[in-house]
Amino acid sequence: MKKALFPNKDQWAEICARPVADHSSIQETVWEIIDNVGMKKDPALFEYALKFEGAELTTLKVSRDEFEAASKSISQELKDAIIVAQKNIEKFHVAQLKDEAVIETMEGVTCWRKDVAIQTVGLYIPGGTAPLFSTVLMLGIPAKIAGCKRVILCTPANKNGEVNAGVLFAAQLVGIDNVYKAGGAQAIAAMAIGTQSVPRVNKIFGPGNQYVTMAKQMVSQMGVAIDMPAGPSEVLVLADSNSNAEFVAADLLAQAEHGSDSQVILVSNSEEKLTEVEAAIESQLKELPRKDIAAKAMENSWGVILDDKDEVVDFVNEYAPEHLILCADQSEYFVDNVINAGSVFIGEYTPESAGDYASGTNHTLPTNGFAKAYSGVSVDSFVKKITYQKITKEGLKKLGPIIEVMAEAEELMGHKNAVTVRLKTL
Amino acid sequence: MKKALFPNKDQWAEICARPVADHSSIQETVWEIIDNVGMKKDPALFEYALKFEGAELTTLKVSRDEFEAASKSISQELKDAIIVAQKNIEKFHVAQLKDEAVIETMEGVTCWRKDVAIQTVGLYIPGGTAPLFSTVLMLGIPAKIAGCKRVILCTPANKNGEVNAGVLFAAQLVGIDNVYKAGGAQAIAAMAIGTQSVPRVNKIFGPGNQYVTMAKQMVSQMGVAIDMPAGPSEVLVLADSNSNAEFVAADLLAQAEHGSDSQVILVSNSEEKLTEVEAAIESQLKELPRKDIAAKAMENSWGVILDDKDEVVDFVNEYAPEHLILCADQSEYFVDNVINAGSVFIGEYTPESAGDYASGTNHTLPTNGFAKAYSGVSVDSFVKKITYQKITKEGLKKLGPIIEVMAEAEELMGHKNAVTVRLKTL
Repeated sequence: MKKALFPNKDQWAEICARPVADHSSIQETVWEIIDNVGMKKDPALFEYALKFEGAELTTLKVSRDEFEAASKSISQELKDAIIVAQKNIEKFHVAQLKDEAVIETMEGVTCWRKDVAIQTVGLYIPGGTAPLFSTVLMLGIPAKIAGCKRVILCTPANKNGEVNAGVLFAAQLVGIDNVYKAGGAQAIAAMAIGTQSVPRVNKIFGPGNQYVTMAKQMVSQMGVAIDMPAGPSEVLVLADSNSNAEFVAADLLAQAEHGSDSQVILVSNSEEKLTEVEAAIESQLKELPRKDIAAKAMENSWGVILDDKDEVVDFVNEYAPEHLILCADQSEYFVDNVINAGSVFIGEYTPESAGDYASGTNHTLPTNGFAKAYSGVSVDSFVKKITYQKITKEGLKKLGPIIEVMAEAEELMGHKNAVTVRLKTL
Repeated sequence: MKKALFPNKDQWAEICARPVADHSSIQETVWEIIDNVGMKKDPALFEYALKFEGAELTTLKVSRDEFEAASKSISQELKDAIIVAQKNIEKFHVAQLKDEAVIETMEGVTCWRKDVAIQTVGLYIPGGTAPLFSTVLMLGIPAKIAGCKRVILCTPANKNGEVNAGVLFAAQLVGIDNVYKAGGAQAIAAMAIGTQSVPRVNKIFGPGNQYVTMAKQMVSQMGVAIDMPAGPSEVLVLADSNSNAEFVAADLLAQAEHGSDSQVILVSNSEEKLTEVEAAIESQLKELPRKDIAAKAMENSWGVILDDKDEVVDFVNEYAPEHLILCADQSEYFVDNVINAGSVFIGEYTPESAGDYASGTNHTLPTNGFAKAYSGVSVDSFVKKITYQKITKEGLKKLGPIIEVMAEAEELMGHKNAVTVRLKTL
């Protein structure tokens, strides 16, 4: 952990800089994969499954039998836990559905908006070292609440051609029947273009490695929407002299174990606390199975000492963390004044891992400073809002002349004429 | 206007294809501009103003005197019209602000969301043949309602170094004081990177030519958010044997006059009506100052005859028009069943130009089929939603074990430990 004691604002940019990965070297590879999937479709997906996962697949779609086998292989304890998480996530996300009022902006001129579900959405769930069935809940639940007609999921099979049982159980639980064995950039390409097995979708969601991220960026230029630009996960913890150093260290390490490119920031007004947290990190780190990854991530990370609470607010807003943990007194002050963050965890007994799994909030959040302009995933991410308007004859008599004057000033006489031809008949 | 009589679904793709522009040739030019602005900042903007607009500028920021002169140069009639439009747009957009409930997902686990304004936003308003002051209202009003702290606007000066008076009047009216004389890709670059005069923004909004569109795409890969991917404007009009052919023709031409790459589609169940509309187009076209542009756009356009109303719904959803005008009987059926459209205009007396200027809805809408996954601009576009959660000791006692089981199953023991260290103290 690098340290910055009372850094002035000139130094903030350095601290706020995320570890930069150079993706240009993979651009060509990803483009080839997209191109190949576009040309060969399913056969390309079979090829890549063999090449990257060592899996000899004959079909891509997960069968009913595979779903059943997955469900049987999972402990009741885990099933029960997943079901509690599902209920909490549902409860929080259902509240995001809203009806909007019909507004009469002028007499005879009524306007309204309606949320309409995006028809077909594709969820990507990475495989690899830690298959994230929790992400199935975080994407699948809001998709279903929004009312998306077709929700599909792609995830890589292992070398035996099997998909992670937790992923299948969670998919079934939230009502996703169409799961395809495809991973990496090729899965993104398949959902963007469509193959014999994998339907083309309107929007793609989900995390992934740098190939997946690059593929999502590329297909978003081809007209397929994506959830948000992605970067490595990150947390900023605010702690003061009263904070529990063990808790703070555990939260920092929970973030650090995600990947060696994760970043964690500790901001405190107490140098003593920083030292205490560092000691706790060192001792907790030894016990973690993913300690090598976490230790590497800690090298990208900063302990920052700042005195003034308004300066802290400014620093947090400049960093714009994906996760913000408020383990300090005066949490309410920071809740009110921090404007750039993905999700905020308030108080000593609110670990970030609660939000990752089961409290109810979504864990798909803007990283890399994108919290300055982007929201995390919610039901909103699975709908688009259509506006409607209806004008009566009387309404057009009043509004029409306004439109005519404005259209003429913009030199769009066709726009004016669309009103004039109507007014003539009234 | 090309014609398709009872096309079967295999032919829809051809009709739904938008005119494709090859942007690859301009990619290098735009990249050079972005690079140049990044290196030289303000001096680059002065250079480009001279090169592209023939304007010798000494400052970029529009002065108070210029605002006043603009206001004086505009007729009272136009001012009054703009003020009515402003009020209607405000009334519709203010209703989009919403408070959300605090949800207790489990006893002791409370979660909520808050809309927080994006701090700094940049609006781009093109110059050229028809400077769109209406777009200043459509972007500036929701930005101010959302509470964005800093709203800036870039628009090119003419060869005399002046900015369009309507644009300045509208800017002042909605409370935008910071207007900069910069156009094209260089304006987008300036707002994305920041120069001595132009502040760096978090999100860029607004229409533009293909250079602007390409620049927005490029800076969106650099971490600056953009409103939406853009393409040429388009309309789909549904008309039947009872529709007024003059109205329909006027609506189609209002769209066609935007640009030679605009596209208009007429869908009807009546061949007779199609012929009648074509005749009305021919006669109205002669009167339009922008007739050459509109005539060119009509060449990209289709008259489609479909018999069955469910087939019509499917076709509209496949096309996913930016603007949908329902001039047919059974409008309500289409309102209920069309799921892909930007904005919908219902009934004979609701011309699309009402929404362009003054009814209250926003005119910045998804084109090019993006209505399948994107919404138009609204107050939502200027905020991001932060989630918050707070767990009590009792809450963590209940939720903690759930998190531990799930984290362990995902092999993220650091995540588990962040709960375990806390539970140990309870």
